[in-house]
Amino acid sequence: MPYYIGDVIKDESRLVARTPEKFRQSGIDVKINTRALEADGVNKTVRLSDGAVIPYDFLVIGTGALASLPMIPGIESDGVFTLKNLPDALRMKTYLKERQGRKAVIVGAGFIAMEMAEALRNIGMETVIVHRGALPASRWDREFSKLMLEELSRNNVSFLTNREITAIEKGENASLRLITSEGEVPADFILFALGTRPNVKLAADMGVKIGKSGAIQVNFSQATNIGGVYAVGDCCEVFHRVSKGWVNLPLGDIANKQGRILGRNIGGGKAFFPGIVGAQSFKLFNLEVAAAGLDERESLSCGYHPVSAIVWGSAIGASMPGAKKVGIKLVADSATGKLLGAQALGEMGAVSRINLLSLALWAEMDIDDIAYLDLAYAPPFSGAWDVIHIAAQALARQI
Amino acid sequence: MPYYIGDVIKDESRLVARTPEKFRQSGIDVKINTRALEADGVNKTVRLSDGAVIPYDFLVIGTGALASLPMIPGIESDGVFTLKNLPDALRMKTYLKERQGRKAVIVGAGFIAMEMAEALRNIGMETVIVHRGALPASRWDREFSKLMLEELSRNNVSFLTNREITAIEKGENASLRLITSEGEVPADFILFALGTRPNVKLAADMGVKIGKSGAIQVNFSQATNIGGVYAVGDCCEVFHRVSKGWVNLPLGDIANKQGRILGRNIGGGKAFFPGIVGAQSFKLFNLEVAAAGLDERESLSCGYHPVSAIVWGSAIGASMPGAKKVGIKLVADSATGKLLGAQALGEMGAVSRINLLSLALWAEMDIDDIAYLDLAYAPPFSGAWDVIHIAAQALARQI
Repeated sequence: MPYYIGDVIKDESRLVARTPEKFRQSGIDVKINTRALEADGVNKTVRLSDGAVIPYDFLVIGTGALASLPMIPGIESDGVFTLKNLPDALRMKTYLKERQGRKAVIVGAGFIAMEMAEALRNIGMETVIVHRGALPASRWDREFSKLMLEELSRNNVSFLTNREITAIEKGENASLRLITSEGEVPADFILFALGTRPNVKLAADMGVKIGKSGAIQVNFSQATNIGGVYAVGDCCEVFHRVSKGWVNLPLGDIANKQGRILGRNIGGGKAFFPGIVGAQSFKLFNLEVAAAGLDERESLSCGYHPVSAIVWGSAIGASMPGAKKVGIKLVADSATGKLLGAQALGEMGAVSRINLLSLALWAEMDIDDIAYLDLAYAPPFSGAWDVIHIAAQALARQI
Repeated sequence: MPYYIGDVIKDESRLVARTPEKFRQSGIDVKINTRALEADGVNKTVRLSDGAVIPYDFLVIGTGALASLPMIPGIESDGVFTLKNLPDALRMKTYLKERQGRKAVIVGAGFIAMEMAEALRNIGMETVIVHRGALPASRWDREFSKLMLEELSRNNVSFLTNREITAIEKGENASLRLITSEGEVPADFILFALGTRPNVKLAADMGVKIGKSGAIQVNFSQATNIGGVYAVGDCCEVFHRVSKGWVNLPLGDIANKQGRILGRNIGGGKAFFPGIVGAQSFKLFNLEVAAAGLDERESLSCGYHPVSAIVWGSAIGASMPGAKKVGIKLVADSATGKLLGAQALGEMGAVSRINLLSLALWAEMDIDDIAYLDLAYAPPFSGAWDVIHIAAQALARQI
């Protein structure tokens, strides 16, 4: 019988349908509130926190990632959160409902910080982002990050730059205060959104190889170096089709795909995970923000010769009511003309275009092909020349 | 000096900037209200309707297409229109403004008919579509066409099926009446939207080869069989990357691309038109409708072995407010797994997905690749498994 070991959430959400009983009806023994303390790849057993030692034929490691937290005084205070999984979200929701605090502080400025800033403003919290750097979402071009900053400002989110966090203390105007290198910030609620690191302890302890990224090494069938031991999701690596290297990119859709591939392989079928191109997106109030592939720095480190262009155009036919601008940045290799990366930002049409460019990256298309792609043109949806065509032509002129 | 021969519209629109004077400032001699009656590929001359015979080094034929009209009594009546070009649209607009008619009839049920039904309802006209067949937009699957019919009905557009048109006469309740095989329909305004045929007379008369499609044969640089003679746009053929054949597909974005390719070649540069995949879309009130590639019938006639699946899913994350369903039909070759065609319909997300699948067709991707494509997932924009992934997996199970 297959086992599932870990947390199972019982709450008002739709996960109720997936309680241990339901799993058991499908022939899956679910041990809740149980930890896998140790696994033995030679004897093929797992030792659990309830004392049991259970045998396995296939061991699937899906230990996920751990949210990063700075080791500062007061980090354990009530009211300090990270957001990595559903229990985190539920704890946050309960806390905010019970405490009725007004002041929220987010430490970090990546896409979780951006999404949470919007969520907190939507429930009426005064929201402050405290960031070590100068601009949000540094994965994107500065031109786009500046527009995100404006969007935050338009929605009354304060953005405090170039601050190191030193401590969390009891507050006066609010229940807590965050001490920074540039003064203190009152807070009833503090969210650390500083990224994650793969949770590989169980795997590493049993001798599973860890890759350069710090995540578990797997092959295209999700197998590790130890026979019968597999890994999927945020704890493992994934093949990046543009850099041709193995990376750790903790995103839910990748975990989903890896799980399905592995399930088919363990279940007696055959499947191969073709990898990713690093497609990602988030919504920031009225903005869509998305990217895929490599930026210039990453391209250089792979040995490519990147050139780039940013082009702004109309997200739909320019003469249509409600038309908005969308900005597209393309990065290509000047030696081969191949697309290496893309970024987009706008009130509409940014994500759909990055999806298109993700497919172009997947298929290793070059800029000349992209400049003449056949798209389903009609004025309510795009111009006869889409901004993608125009951006590709602009970049082609540089090559 | 390059010549442009044909109609130039002088009106309130933004085309004012492109009057003959403006063109002349750019070194282009524009002869308005002048027809090219005859061209001579041996002596390299064109005889014009003003009597002049002008020489050329490069002759570009961009004669477009002619809207199809049935040869029935009364077809020349005032109030009968086709919609092929901007002058047609301006004539229609003036007529509707001056006559204040209430009853509009559209003959035909393709995408021009659909777009015009919406436009006419938007200015408050009572609108009736008269169609030879039973469902609109027969390029799409019957399941989708039925939903278009419901959308027409929801927006008070009558749809009269299985009627042949026999005559147009002076009317009683309205200025005209359309006589059909199943009774008559009163009309102040009649639009024939029965498709187009390429306008190839000038080309054919000078010995330019006409393809099986009835349009001018060109190569990938837009050259015809006669040296120095080129063709672009609705009058010529285009390479279809899925059927691997040359077709005539009179769409504005294709004409634009061909014009640009030819301009580069004539101007001393080098360019190659890579062809199309038949991507197209239209808006019908609240619906997005789009398609690309081949349907089953076309696939069979190419020698493919088509299988298909229609899948409905959420256009954005299913838990997001405002989420709507989108339907995707995929057609693939059961011998190779290659995608052959795609159709989509929904209140949101249909066109963006067809654009993605157009790129998949372009790159000759197979269903297994599409099932695991890396897209920029975030709940405001899609599910972790997009409906495209789900449709590809559903189809893969049939192969």
